[in-house]
Amino acid sequence: MSGGPRPAPGARTPDPDWNPTPVVPSGAPDDVPEAWFNLVPNLPVPLPPARDGDDGQPSRLALQRRIRLAAVQEQDASTESFLPIPQRVREELAAIGRPTPLLRARALEAHLRTPARIYLKREDVLPTGSFKLNSAIAQAYFAAQQGVRTLVTETGAGQWGHAVAWAARLFGLHAVIFWAGVSARQKLGRHTVIKLLGGEVYPSPSERTQVGKALLRDGRHLLGSLGTAIGEAISYAQDHPETRYISGSNLPHVLAHQSVIGQEVKAQLAALGETPDTLIACVGGGSNLGGLMGPYLADKAERGDGLTLIGAESASAPRLTRGEWRYDHADPEGITPLTKSYTLGRDYELPETHVGGLRQHSGSAVVGVLRSQGLIDAVAYDEAEAFETGSLMLRHEGVLIAPESCHAVRAAVDRAIEARRTGRAETIVACVSGNGALDLEGYTAHLGDGA
Amino acid sequence: MSGGPRPAPGARTPDPDWNPTPVVPSGAPDDVPEAWFNLVPNLPVPLPPARDGDDGQPSRLALQRRIRLAAVQEQDASTESFLPIPQRVREELAAIGRPTPLLRARALEAHLRTPARIYLKREDVLPTGSFKLNSAIAQAYFAAQQGVRTLVTETGAGQWGHAVAWAARLFGLHAVIFWAGVSARQKLGRHTVIKLLGGEVYPSPSERTQVGKALLRDGRHLLGSLGTAIGEAISYAQDHPETRYISGSNLPHVLAHQSVIGQEVKAQLAALGETPDTLIACVGGGSNLGGLMGPYLADKAERGDGLTLIGAESASAPRLTRGEWRYDHADPEGITPLTKSYTLGRDYELPETHVGGLRQHSGSAVVGVLRSQGLIDAVAYDEAEAFETGSLMLRHEGVLIAPESCHAVRAAVDRAIEARRTGRAETIVACVSGNGALDLEGYTAHLGDGA
Repeated sequence: MSGGPRPAPGARTPDPDWNPTPVVPSGAPDDVPEAWFNLVPNLPVPLPPARDGDDGQPSRLALQRRIRLAAVQEQDASTESFLPIPQRVREELAAIGRPTPLLRARALEAHLRTPARIYLKREDVLPTGSFKLNSAIAQAYFAAQQGVRTLVTETGAGQWGHAVAWAARLFGLHAVIFWAGVSARQKLGRHTVIKLLGGEVYPSPSERTQVGKALLRDGRHLLGSLGTAIGEAISYAQDHPETRYISGSNLPHVLAHQSVIGQEVKAQLAALGETPDTLIACVGGGSNLGGLMGPYLADKAERGDGLTLIGAESASAPRLTRGEWRYDHADPEGITPLTKSYTLGRDYELPETHVGGLRQHSGSAVVGVLRSQGLIDAVAYDEAEAFETGSLMLRHEGVLIAPESCHAVRAAVDRAIEARRTGRAETIVACVSGNGALDLEGYTAHLGDGA
Repeated sequence: MSGGPRPAPGARTPDPDWNPTPVVPSGAPDDVPEAWFNLVPNLPVPLPPARDGDDGQPSRLALQRRIRLAAVQEQDASTESFLPIPQRVREELAAIGRPTPLLRARALEAHLRTPARIYLKREDVLPTGSFKLNSAIAQAYFAAQQGVRTLVTETGAGQWGHAVAWAARLFGLHAVIFWAGVSARQKLGRHTVIKLLGGEVYPSPSERTQVGKALLRDGRHLLGSLGTAIGEAISYAQDHPETRYISGSNLPHVLAHQSVIGQEVKAQLAALGETPDTLIACVGGGSNLGGLMGPYLADKAERGDGLTLIGAESASAPRLTRGEWRYDHADPEGITPLTKSYTLGRDYELPETHVGGLRQHSGSAVVGVLRSQGLIDAVAYDEAEAFETGSLMLRHEGVLIAPESCHAVRAAVDRAIEARRTGRAETIVACVSGNGALDLEGYTAHLGDGA
């Protein structure tokens, strides 16, 4: 040992008063809402009920009643505006990091030279990388309460399947997941994560179910879609009476479970002294849209054109912008009941895209009511526009967002550019429904196109 | 419109007092430490200085002085225990989400049936998915202050390159990144993200530099490693006088920049009334280890065997467990100065692994002093052990962690199992240095092996 005296190993600190807020997930549910907001009794017209067809087939409604969880059927039938969130669910929602941050996208605003203020609701920071966990936790809880051991479901981009595998693990359940084949084959990393979580995954259409076999035999919808996966999940549940079938979008209870998003946004904006002028969500089955906008339905009724609600969809599945508002099955084979929604028709073969979460031929009846009543506007973007927006977000905000979420942010960017023209200091809130780290194949393909 | 009276669109809330904490990244730096902790003056013996060889080659130390940022050279020479963090850097560290959470891994503890309490410091939640951002932001800031426009660096797994590309974007700089070829070819998704961020990437060894050409010509180190990438980055900086070369590990200033980790852990544990018995970090260039353990050096001096410090390394690059404590070059071609560290020798050809962040033949002099003085223990794990641990973390804590971080958690798991035998309610803290979402190729390969 050489040299002069060494300072004692340092216990000094330059500021003895530096005492940062400990950031320890507490599991304390106080910051999570006490109830879900139920959109259905708050719609301006009654929700068109699901119904059976006149084709002499066995009742699809009866099948749904048998294979679905009791609790969510009660929620869908409820006329209450608020559905209590079980304490255990509140605890788990706190544990995954709710409330999620509301980010002011200042760098994006500066780049756009807009007077608008853009707020991004960051559902992408949740453990599975998307908002889907909010409902997956609730439904896995209800399943465990009911004594169910195996859940069957479908997934499009894989966000819902990933969330169900995660939530199933949390409650000691097994998850069987039918995954739109085109997305399952793109997303090898997400496939690995779902399998590591213990999920049993089948790219759809598959040989695993009667519905899948029929599609393969007839050479229909071979790329797969959310619709083919819905059909197969129901078919599987039909053949496995011990299982229960759950959904991650479209239905009232799923939209209600997602209302934690909008309730948090309301509280967060109030704390900032802000009132939103525009709320934006991407729209596939409508659950992040319903979750963000449901708690604002009263404001919309009061403010009319003073509050703009926008659903951003994929131009490859343009239901709200080009579909018809009519009864249709949610799956190509017609194993689902007839539901009224904006639809492209169940024979519509969806093209291959990297936007699996928005890739279905029909959608949510609740969203359909909002659209048909003129409460929400709709815009459609193609894949190149979406990934351009994702690149913009990454470069300016440093955040890598899911391809689906790119549609919502694109709509926010368009509004912000319009605000530059009009000079209006508009307050825009867009929901970032998911993270893009497990969807990089789409970005890579986009980059290959010279982006 | 049919039916009876509809409830008015609901402005009701079940609990008018529900008033959640708004979670809005504030940019306010009050929760970020005011100073970095400098390990060097707090080592029990002086740090062995870097030196030139006796081979008649031009001075490598002179080259380092020319190509490195002035501020970090001042930091490396400082005898102060605390180096002030510039206010702008504190603001950016707050904006990326510091302090990061400290997670009690209760599910993992239950699975292990251990009396130990396992705390995980969650650096994986930062925007680029790893702790590397802490130093990248600091160095990009110093570069911008110095008027530098282009930064050149190396990266192993890609975490540092990703962080530098992100931080460079933040300060309007250009980043040139030499990336250990074996990792660059594995990680297509991370490659895409770095390119979208504007980073200029070269898998190493490359034809882009004199050092890379020499390796390719001689057929040495063709897989690439952190060492080949270091050599090429320095070679590039030598040939481009307008650029500056930065490092993401090994050197005292990098370890200091990472000391926000340990300072936060101290405050977070104090708030919980906890005193750590064991601190664990994975160790490649030693910066997450130094960052976690530096602020605990005084405690270690005081408590001796009462506080255990463990470095977890890769069995494919077993420097601390099987290397020699001697002077060596950090790159195979010898363009770096001679530094004293635990080394396998610069001719050691590292095998192909999915643990790129721990894959170098030598390491940090500071870590070497800690090891040679008996202050840190070392353990080595092979790739299968690491990915097994990653799968365990995902199944029990729902968190997908980087392959490097798996080594630290594995050591924590081993301690917790030992605690089960002894019955000791040990308090263990392990640093989760990174997220695994951009490293799924390794998990996929592991899954293919029947995991």
